[in-house]
Amino acid sequence: MDKSVMRGNANQARVARVATVDGRGHVHLVPVTFALSEDVWYSPTDAGERLAKRLRNLTCDPRVSILIDVYDDDWSKVWWVRMHGSGRIVLDSPERDHAWRLLRAKYPQFASTPSDEGAGPVMAVDVHHWAVWSYSG
Amino acid sequence: MDKSVMRGNANQARVARVATVDGRGHVHLVPVTFALSEDVWYSPTDAGERLAKRLRNLTCDPRVSILIDVYDDDWSKVWWVRMHGSGRIVLDSPERDHAWRLLRAKYPQFASTPSDEGAGPVMAVDVHHWAVWSYSG
Repeated sequence: MDKSVMRGNANQARVARVATVDGRGHVHLVPVTFALSEDVWYSPTDAGERLAKRLRNLTCDPRVSILIDVYDDDWSKVWWVRMHGSGRIVLDSPERDHAWRLLRAKYPQFASTPSDEGAGPVMAVDVHHWAVWSYSG
Repeated sequence: MDKSVMRGNANQARVARVATVDGRGHVHLVPVTFALSEDVWYSPTDAGERLAKRLRNLTCDPRVSILIDVYDDDWSKVWWVRMHGSGRIVLDSPERDHAWRLLRAKYPQFASTPSDEGAGPVMAVDVHHWAVWSYSG
């Protein structure tokens, strides 16, 4: 599959599952909303006093695994895209604003987040490896 | 949420995402079919000469994270259950037969797997920690 097609299919998904690792090598796995900008994957976190666990984990180990998959009881329709990359915490910056613009464009639900100032830090992952699989080959 | 209700809700899901860790601390993340039997989570692998990566990883690190979540664009309906446990490879044994019976009962698609002899090893996870989250609290 062409990489731009794979990216497009992946970005149409509404949810991804993201795995990070803490200082004891324990996996943290959570479903998140996301938007892709070429080979950078962005995911929002809530504004708040404490960074989300998946962001804190990046300070121990920047490796991130992201899974985007579609399940269907007709297994011939099942596929997934898996990305590996290096994660960064994006605080107040033009890159964070860019990420939030993409996220708001993809998810109208974020309209209730009043402004970039009210939005939380963003998880950015520089994707260096893409894998794709489908049941039907 | 009562644990038996949580288990029941989780077991109704058709797909789980499972994370294991290899010898270099690299996460392996994949969507899988599964069935629950009390606090043991079972997931099938294909029969074949080589064990699936998620099973090989257990020989390095038995820690397994399992995420079962439902996404809906109405975020008030979003929820997830996350399990942590210790993984085991279940080869030909009464436990493997038990797991395959549960899997066949849940997924009619496995009817085309002709017999227990033709089915592959099973990943068993002894779940020692359950967490549950919902958008609506």
